Amino acid sequence: MTIREQAQEAARAAVKLAAVSSVVKNKALESMAEALLAAQDEILAANAEDISAGKAKQMKESLIDRLLLTPARVADMADGLRQVASLRDPVGEIIGGSTLPNGLTVTKIRVPLGVIGIIYEARPNVTADAIGLCMKSGNAVILKGGSEAIRSNTKIAEVLKNAAEAAGIPKGSIQFITSTDHAAVQELISLNGLVDVVIPRGSGRLIQAVVGNASVPVIETGVGVCHTFVDEDADFAMAERIIINAKTQRPSVCNAMETLLVHRAAVREFLPAILQALKEHGVQVIGDETVCASDPDAVAATEEDWATEYGDLRLSVKIVDSVDDAIEHIATYGTKHSECIVTRNFAHARQFQQMVDAACVYVNASTRFTDGFQFGFGAEIGISTQKLHARGPMALPELTTYKYLISGDGQVRP
Amino acid sequence: MTIREQAQEAARAAVKLAAVSSVVKNKALESMAEALLAAQDEILAANAEDISAGKAKQMKESLIDRLLLTPARVADMADGLRQVASLRDPVGEIIGGSTLPNGLTVTKIRVPLGVIGIIYEARPNVTADAIGLCMKSGNAVILKGGSEAIRSNTKIAEVLKNAAEAAGIPKGSIQFITSTDHAAVQELISLNGLVDVVIPRGSGRLIQAVVGNASVPVIETGVGVCHTFVDEDADFAMAERIIINAKTQRPSVCNAMETLLVHRAAVREFLPAILQALKEHGVQVIGDETVCASDPDAVAATEEDWATEYGDLRLSVKIVDSVDDAIEHIATYGTKHSECIVTRNFAHARQFQQMVDAACVYVNASTRFTDGFQFGFGAEIGISTQKLHARGPMALPELTTYKYLISGDGQVRP
Repeated sequence: MTIREQAQEAARAAVKLAAVSSVVKNKALESMAEALLAAQDEILAANAEDISAGKAKQMKESLIDRLLLTPARVADMADGLRQVASLRDPVGEIIGGSTLPNGLTVTKIRVPLGVIGIIYEARPNVTADAIGLCMKSGNAVILKGGSEAIRSNTKIAEVLKNAAEAAGIPKGSIQFITSTDHAAVQELISLNGLVDVVIPRGSGRLIQAVVGNASVPVIETGVGVCHTFVDEDADFAMAERIIINAKTQRPSVCNAMETLLVHRAAVREFLPAILQALKEHGVQVIGDETVCASDPDAVAATEEDWATEYGDLRLSVKIVDSVDDAIEHIATYGTKHSECIVTRNFAHARQFQQMVDAACVYVNASTRFTDGFQFGFGAEIGISTQKLHARGPMALPELTTYKYLISGDGQVRP
Repeated sequence: MTIREQAQEAARAAVKLAAVSSVVKNKALESMAEALLAAQDEILAANAEDISAGKAKQMKESLIDRLLLTPARVADMADGLRQVASLRDPVGEIIGGSTLPNGLTVTKIRVPLGVIGIIYEARPNVTADAIGLCMKSGNAVILKGGSEAIRSNTKIAEVLKNAAEAAGIPKGSIQFITSTDHAAVQELISLNGLVDVVIPRGSGRLIQAVVGNASVPVIETGVGVCHTFVDEDADFAMAERIIINAKTQRPSVCNAMETLLVHRAAVREFLPAILQALKEHGVQVIGDETVCASDPDAVAATEEDWATEYGDLRLSVKIVDSVDDAIEHIATYGTKHSECIVTRNFAHARQFQQMVDAACVYVNASTRFTDGFQFGFGAEIGISTQKLHARGPMALPELTTYKYLISGDGQVRP
């Protein structure tokens, strides 16, 4: 089948899938979890081939680790599907409506988006996660994974598709693109009228390529240049705990901190202590003049540093003159993901939350909490850094749209 | 200023505009209405030049009429601004949230989108409408109107911008692109990071060009191939009232009806009567075999007809075998705008509303009600035919997004 034919099949299936009850969808998710466990040996065998191919291509050790499946990781995927089964079904929720003066009733009801394209890299668990969330939210899904995980992804998708269809999910609801050609991505993101939205998950390069070339709607995810601003009257012990957590607890993820802003009035009391604490946690500081003067190990920051998502134990540090300056710096260099102020000043906290334009604006807490599971959503398909449709952590309701049902007894427009 | 510089100025203004109170915004809208009326002579003079230029270029009479401003039309624009002032401000509404087990409070609050680009044609009143709705919802706006109305639009935008800024709207919040070059559109729809969304309003050709070439998020509006399906046990008198209204009350608009589907079991009793009624209302029928056999004036429909938005008094008519067939036809040829079933059968009504994938699905009412004013929203910036972000009539809340405000007392992620 061509990709267009796959999308046509998905679009036809989506119409039926939208009407499948929660009971059937939940049973299907349970069957899919069981099928994954039952197929563990085949999945691990396919993964072993991907791993060999990766090693033969001198793939980086960190990427090999992301690609690797183990019995425990297969069990985690199965658990993930069961958790999705236990979540509330967003489809069919009545989210508004009214009775018009002429007697027409207008009901706004949540419905699936239709056909969702997921373009992703490396981690094979995304295959299971994305299929589970799309099925629960009543959406047909077209998956395009990275070439390095093609054997693992193909096998996982095949096992889940067969189990889903055997359990009553309409045939064609799960489509996996087996081509590893880049042209396949371009075709998928140009199928207006068949694909309702594409969600890219992976590197900044992948995301920008999709955003720049898609004609179907895209939800941009993932790039986070997150700041923490320490105000002049912060609780400095609290500030240190938050900064160490936000920077070092898992530096590779998008909600980790990349830039520390310190109020000039806090430099004397706070800066040496935090630079020492960062050093003890293995953090390489890249700082402005004041910072470099205070820490001989600090590297001088360039303009580019302020806009860089390091994704490792590097941290840029800058002194600012006021909360306004901090807000201005964040407006210039931030990616509208997660931003934090540490302060005891109520007015500053309020101003920062109001004026900073980001998905998540924190007072006195680590930016690492920007996450669907941490927020209590029970799931996460990605973290949106655009403003259209969904912002911040996206779970099941973000995979839906709505329609208006209007009922009358012959009303016509005067 | 280049378009990029205009967008940068808009983005800077948007940060301030997001924090402007409803009181200031409403007073500004009132001032803008007064300024329009005070500048009526200048606006009509600029419009007269556009009209002369249009006539010199042999512009169609219907387009000339859309372009023409009169004292009454200027007063309507001013009234529109006053109506927007009277609507509820969506900005700042708390739309959700929770307290997490660790004590963090998460508040989901409605905020402006930021910078909205509006690309439109012909009607100069769109300039005032769009500026009013964007200001009320706290968004900076960049307007790109059609070349045929450039003098009228430039004057209206200038008057409103001056009045708005004098009344406390941050400088730079209203940007009007004076270039009539097509390259200006391409530049505007490529300004990722500066423009948060672009809304095209106008012909299908304009909309498709924007959707196909934009890298910033787009809300697709407007194309409507709307169907009315007359079921076998419809109230035929009601069906006739609805059909005549949906087709003839204002045939040029997107929620007008383009295709009539009639259940085969209703042909004998209903078809001759409705064909006669349509004829009396000046409607040219384009039908399938059964329809052409019944009406010597009917033209045989081609495959293309079923997908055509006529926008005039032509109507395609097809006989179908069942409600399932009607749903299938709509899934194939519809544009997900507005669809209607006329029936007395509860199960058929329910099935049609559930299975038809469109912004608005009607039972026993004219599709002409798909409209922000008719729905009681008090405004309309367009009718979305995509599923992402907003669907159907869009008013003030659809010009907003949300952010999460998270407050704590030093929480870090374990």
